[in-house]
Amino acid sequence: MEKYEQEIEVKGHLIDSMILTRIFDKIMDLSGDFRVLEFVVGKRKGDPSYARLLIRSKNKMQLKELLEVVYREGAQPLSLKEVQLKKVARNMVMPDNFYSTTNNPTQIYFDNTWINVENMMMDKCITVSPLKTATCKTIRELRKGDRIVVGEQGIRIIPQERPREGVDIFQFMSSTSSSERPTQQIGRKIANDIFRTRKVNGKIIVVAGPVLVHSGASEALAKLIRNGYVQGLLTGNALAVHDVENALMGTSLGMHVEDGTLAVRGHRNHMQAINEIFKAGSLKEMVQKRILNKGILYECITNDIPFVLAGSVRDDGPIPDVVTDVVEAQQKYKQVLENAKMVLMLSTMLHSIAVGNMLPSTVKVVAIDISQPVVTKLLDRGTTQATGVVTDIGAFLPLVVEHLELLGVSNRNKN
Amino acid sequence: MEKYEQEIEVKGHLIDSMILTRIFDKIMDLSGDFRVLEFVVGKRKGDPSYARLLIRSKNKMQLKELLEVVYREGAQPLSLKEVQLKKVARNMVMPDNFYSTTNNPTQIYFDNTWINVENMMMDKCITVSPLKTATCKTIRELRKGDRIVVGEQGIRIIPQERPREGVDIFQFMSSTSSSERPTQQIGRKIANDIFRTRKVNGKIIVVAGPVLVHSGASEALAKLIRNGYVQGLLTGNALAVHDVENALMGTSLGMHVEDGTLAVRGHRNHMQAINEIFKAGSLKEMVQKRILNKGILYECITNDIPFVLAGSVRDDGPIPDVVTDVVEAQQKYKQVLENAKMVLMLSTMLHSIAVGNMLPSTVKVVAIDISQPVVTKLLDRGTTQATGVVTDIGAFLPLVVEHLELLGVSNRNKN
Amino acid sequence: MEKYEQEIEVKGHLIDSMILTRIFDKIMDLSGDFRVLEFVVGKRKGDPSYARLLIRSKNKMQLKELLEVVYREGAQPLSLKEVQLKKVARNMVMPDNFYSTTNNPTQIYFDNTWINVENMMMDKCITVSPLKTATCKTIRELRKGDRIVVGEQGIRIIPQERPREGVDIFQFMSSTSSSERPTQQIGRKIANDIFRTRKVNGKIIVVAGPVLVHSGASEALAKLIRNGYVQGLLTGNALAVHDVENALMGTSLGMHVEDGTLAVRGHRNHMQAINEIFKAGSLKEMVQKRILNKGILYECITNDIPFVLAGSVRDDGPIPDVVTDVVEAQQKYKQVLENAKMVLMLSTMLHSIAVGNMLPSTVKVVAIDISQPVVTKLLDRGTTQATGVVTDIGAFLPLVVEHLELLGVSNRNKN
Amino acid sequence: MEKYEQEIEVKGHLIDSMILTRIFDKIMDLSGDFRVLEFVVGKRKGDPSYARLLIRSKNKMQLKELLEVVYREGAQPLSLKEVQLKKVARNMVMPDNFYSTTNNPTQIYFDNTWINVENMMMDKCITVSPLKTATCKTIRELRKGDRIVVGEQGIRIIPQERPREGVDIFQFMSSTSSSERPTQQIGRKIANDIFRTRKVNGKIIVVAGPVLVHSGASEALAKLIRNGYVQGLLTGNALAVHDVENALMGTSLGMHVEDGTLAVRGHRNHMQAINEIFKAGSLKEMVQKRILNKGILYECITNDIPFVLAGSVRDDGPIPDVVTDVVEAQQKYKQVLENAKMVLMLSTMLHSIAVGNMLPSTVKVVAIDISQPVVTKLLDRGTTQATGVVTDIGAFLPLVVEHLELLGVSNRNKN
Repeated sequence: MEKYEQEIEVKGHLIDSMILTRIFDKIMDLSGDFRVLEFVVGKRKGDPSYARLLIRSKNKMQLKELLEVVYREGAQPLSLKEVQLKKVARNMVMPDNFYSTTNNPTQIYFDNTWINVENMMMDKCITVSPLKTATCKTIRELRKGDRIVVGEQGIRIIPQERPREGVDIFQFMSSTSSSERPTQQIGRKIANDIFRTRKVNGKIIVVAGPVLVHSGASEALAKLIRNGYVQGLLTGNALAVHDVENALMGTSLGMHVEDGTLAVRGHRNHMQAINEIFKAGSLKEMVQKRILNKGILYECITNDIPFVLAGSVRDDGPIPDVVTDVVEAQQKYKQVLENAKMVLMLSTMLHSIAVGNMLPSTVKVVAIDISQPVVTKLLDRGTTQATGVVTDIGAFLPLVVEHLELLGVSNRNKN
Repeated sequence: MEKYEQEIEVKGHLIDSMILTRIFDKIMDLSGDFRVLEFVVGKRKGDPSYARLLIRSKNKMQLKELLEVVYREGAQPLSLKEVQLKKVARNMVMPDNFYSTTNNPTQIYFDNTWINVENMMMDKCITVSPLKTATCKTIRELRKGDRIVVGEQGIRIIPQERPREGVDIFQFMSSTSSSERPTQQIGRKIANDIFRTRKVNGKIIVVAGPVLVHSGASEALAKLIRNGYVQGLLTGNALAVHDVENALMGTSLGMHVEDGTLAVRGHRNHMQAINEIFKAGSLKEMVQKRILNKGILYECITNDIPFVLAGSVRDDGPIPDVVTDVVEAQQKYKQVLENAKMVLMLSTMLHSIAVGNMLPSTVKVVAIDISQPVVTKLLDRGTTQATGVVTDIGAFLPLVVEHLELLGVSNRNKN
Repeated sequence: MEKYEQEIEVKGHLIDSMILTRIFDKIMDLSGDFRVLEFVVGKRKGDPSYARLLIRSKNKMQLKELLEVVYREGAQPLSLKEVQLKKVARNMVMPDNFYSTTNNPTQIYFDNTWINVENMMMDKCITVSPLKTATCKTIRELRKGDRIVVGEQGIRIIPQERPREGVDIFQFMSSTSSSERPTQQIGRKIANDIFRTRKVNGKIIVVAGPVLVHSGASEALAKLIRNGYVQGLLTGNALAVHDVENALMGTSLGMHVEDGTLAVRGHRNHMQAINEIFKAGSLKEMVQKRILNKGILYECITNDIPFVLAGSVRDDGPIPDVVTDVVEAQQKYKQVLENAKMVLMLSTMLHSIAVGNMLPSTVKVVAIDISQPVVTKLLDRGTTQATGVVTDIGAFLPLVVEHLELLGVSNRNKN
Repeated sequence: MEKYEQEIEVKGHLIDSMILTRIFDKIMDLSGDFRVLEFVVGKRKGDPSYARLLIRSKNKMQLKELLEVVYREGAQPLSLKEVQLKKVARNMVMPDNFYSTTNNPTQIYFDNTWINVENMMMDKCITVSPLKTATCKTIRELRKGDRIVVGEQGIRIIPQERPREGVDIFQFMSSTSSSERPTQQIGRKIANDIFRTRKVNGKIIVVAGPVLVHSGASEALAKLIRNGYVQGLLTGNALAVHDVENALMGTSLGMHVEDGTLAVRGHRNHMQAINEIFKAGSLKEMVQKRILNKGILYECITNDIPFVLAGSVRDDGPIPDVVTDVVEAQQKYKQVLENAKMVLMLSTMLHSIAVGNMLPSTVKVVAIDISQPVVTKLLDRGTTQATGVVTDIGAFLPLVVEHLELLGVSNRNKN
């Protein structure tokens, strides 16, 4: 029995970032045992700590499991071992003991060096190219002969540390969400974060659903795009159609947005908007032919902001601009998300979960929805700097945009 | 079998107000039968219609039931009969066949005249005084010897007709609620309604819960009171304590409202606010001693707006101003609600249901909450001119107040 | 001004099915005017009524609008007119004044006869073939040269009448939904309805989401399929993957379903299930190779029940069985739904809305979800015999299945 | 500046129970500084750890704040100091620097010994009697001359440690709640916990709301009481009235529970139930007079289970058994809760929050509601062994009771 043990070490802000807590937790959850061999706490706030532990278990299988979980929390065996690779035998099929990724920054020890894995995403695999670059890939991207990482050795995960003493929204609020917090205040904080992110040219991506249009926040989002705060829009057919209906006929779900009176044949307006897009050929052609001259998609097109409309089985139409193949839509989403620094998820569960699955844990995420369970679910995707706001997007987004305009003015005055 | 039938008649906007629909529905729901003996439809829009029906049933019991339900929808037997009264034998005990009220305007045929019943509320009883006045009362108000209405005859209910072609919010939206509607627009509509109601000196009562403070809408409500748009505030211990904490220490649930930083010992602030109120003796004395000089309750006190804090079992404290006996609290609520024209229910289910139980169907009700099930439940109470808004009060109330200020300015300019 | 008027007539259960109410409502909503020229009420319950109205308006445009809306409620002009057709000029583009369908049974008056429109769905168009058959089609199905219905004349809609004195769940509950109703009772009612529908060989389609697996209702649904109560399953990638994970590894979201203990590398199980499916080639091949031998999909495959997995942008994988093109997925959904008598929507908004868009108003719909807003939204799609249950599918579906087993036993004993 | 520092120490499962994490967090949240002077980690799982820290700050005020927060997490100054007491100057008024309690077990160092504080509750104060006993009290209980604890010194808090390797529900689930978990499984786990708690004569208190009756779980709760699993019931007027209506008339909200048909004058049944209780005098008298012979309250009365009906402003009636004064109701709730080991919160936010405010952190809490925000809010109250289930009580409680019956049978068979 004495044989089933392994020494591991771990460095970093072990305590305040809860890394050690999680390691101890996981070991105990799996009924494992451990001994602390060495523990050096950073003497001052900001200093990293170091711990060396002996993990012990009842049998070989359990030890393997224990090590897998502690490695995922950032621990490492004392003795460096090379990562194990295995060739893909058939397109889109992984070897049985494939390594399944986290969304944290990850390195592999290959050919005696630590290599960063590019394009980190959760629940994917890692391929290593002949040029010794490592990339996170989806199962559908695998081709026969690709080498992918198997087993758990030679892999180093860098858990995200909790940000400290910052000034942004992510320090302002804990990761839980609730409707019982000061909305105006939170709106200003988010505006500040957007502003600061853009000041250093950080890329901001908006993920949005049709409720944004119904609840009357179209003009706010259009302004956000126009003013340069959005570098990509990820959405679906419904938002585009509602946006066009709103722009062409001034109605949303059959109600005149301006004066709140009912439109005749409201539902037909929806179909008419779709028909107009088919007639023009695409949204872009609608803009070129000056049929569409305002709204969210108009701003994207005239400001050269990339947008992707991912198809879904509930689409009416769908319009020609929709990427009807979902695998292709995922790839296009992924392209737009490249190097994003911040993602605003505005009232859409479907597209937000899709995006959450593609993000590394280093990207800031703000999830806004009127339903607390939806916000909770989105925050669960696990980026470290995620915050949720349970609010009405129709009232909230205009608040954020208003504050951004003040910031813009005061910034121009300063310069 | 032929004997179990009765002729009834009904007048009004039978079709567009769905009165006849409901009568037919109810008869069929109870497996009854009917024959339309006469039906004169108003020739033009606006003209009342008239219907005479023969209600038929299988037995005496069923006929009685059928008649009860159709009477409640506004139908009447052809032959006028006197209302039946019975004396209350013991305090707080009704005779077995007591008449249970609706919240619609109701008349009783007593001593050969139709008498209006005062103070209509749902699920109560009707007493008739020696002076031949009729009043709706709760069971706890009944005293031995009071005469109350029993059975179902001699009672006329005037169902509320659906308002038409109006300009207010209640025409704008159907009675259903959803978060998928234009928030800004709805906010302006509600502001218009409040403004119009006050222009003719209509009394507006606000029912509010502590979420209003947490979500940062205190200043908006304070302004609403200060500007004369509120004639009474019905709430509980929590809103008052949070309001005082906010006014004295600038915190709400332990967070500085101004800059969003965490307060030390946040929870203690809540207890300290309570202690300060006990120390001063009451909220009024806090204002007199100039300890409390802003906030919702401050505005109520300095502007002589009546407020009632109804106690609940979850109260911390509760503070001296709380009416700890719930029956007494109900009476005080009822007094403040007298002659109200409009009630704004702001993010509180407990107090809103209490108020809903006390209102006649003629009062306008606006129910605002972030939870759709709560809004649906509140609208269920059944006033005819009720509308629900599923939104975040922290973002929405400031919107309404902002629009009211614009209306106020443009009104002053006109005069 | 006198010229802008038109006589219309309408027949049916005008009052209790609220047809006349809706017609009057719509006219008034649009500020139109009307006169009742003739009104014959069915003398007895069950007799149809007849009304002849003169619709009047201020101008030609308004009259057109008024007529459009009343025609949609089942009214007809007195003088029979032929339906108007127009050729489609380009693939997937409708003529500007295309007729947009309701989901009610619809007829067109063509070549002096009333023709039934096949395949009714909401918000689509109607094509007429050279063989004089009429079919409801989506915009993407239109080909150059197709003749489609334009304008509003020569079209008859048969509004669904409210069912009466029935024995099924749809009489039991009003169309509103709430969590405050007797769950056990409702479960038995739904079981009865399912049983009765199957007794006359009615086709029942299940639409389901992954929550069904997470909440532990897999075995209940598997049993429902095995016992012949399901004739088609419409879902997506997630349910299939979770179902396979559950079948192969006994876990769901990383927890052992049997004893509730945590599985090691829970998230990896999810990816492993996906990999196993890719390895086998498809779900069907997994069954053939005896790798998959229980669960929801297993039952579909072994019992020859058609299933469609519609792709979505949030899919992990997606597995080979998923129809990744959403337009193709819609077509496959539609095929499975053909002639369905009843649809059970189990905890999925995405797929349920997709299905709702494809159903004629004559199909029975039961929508079950733990979120009241979701249920309300699903019922809004507008089939007449729709009912919603706000409950936890993990507790509710086993209840329904248990009661169905009792019914099955008692039925066998009777025969 | 060097002067603003203080040495503190802390013992226990510092890492896995996150005590040290929380201390570090709090210091950093308040922009404080610290140095780890000594840190001895328990060598084996189960061994306590020890840490000695030097807390440093910029000024005296900040140091005070820092110490306050770390003391609340279980830290202690190295040098033992006596607790400070101050006399209450007036009834119901605390000295300004009163100590505000947590709900964790707490000791005070008084007269050179550590004294346990009795009756721990959150957000209250501590009084010390002449007999040197310490008790947690509400502000309304304070009388002139009482000595209460002020400041933060001489107080030791014992934070609850996370339970480990247990077999009960509290190990099964993390403290978060979601509707995406296996309901049947969770139901069995909760049944096991109830069973185990009763086997060692642990006191179980049920807090319940009227939804329990509407959703059809009355018989399940009645059985739970009858079978000895409930030692106290805390609820309000509505549950009692609905329970009586159900028992007397077989209806709930106007629907016959047995066959689901509509009752005539459903709303009147509610008022009739209230009148019957007033007529009998009380629920107890109804049982004695054999008018009430089944249901939840009947079981309480015949099995001598204490119950408290706390009044609320929305009560219809309220019936004579209701404690209409909320302060008195709080005292009665508190009495019933004395020495409770487990509390089941069943579909009521109002009463559950009231109870949550009264519980020490050592009591097991199970919060069940169909609304995730409600469950989240209840778990926030902060007992360590709290778990939430987002489910439909009407389907869930019968599940739990069914499993308890199996456990009871198998237990009897064993003995």
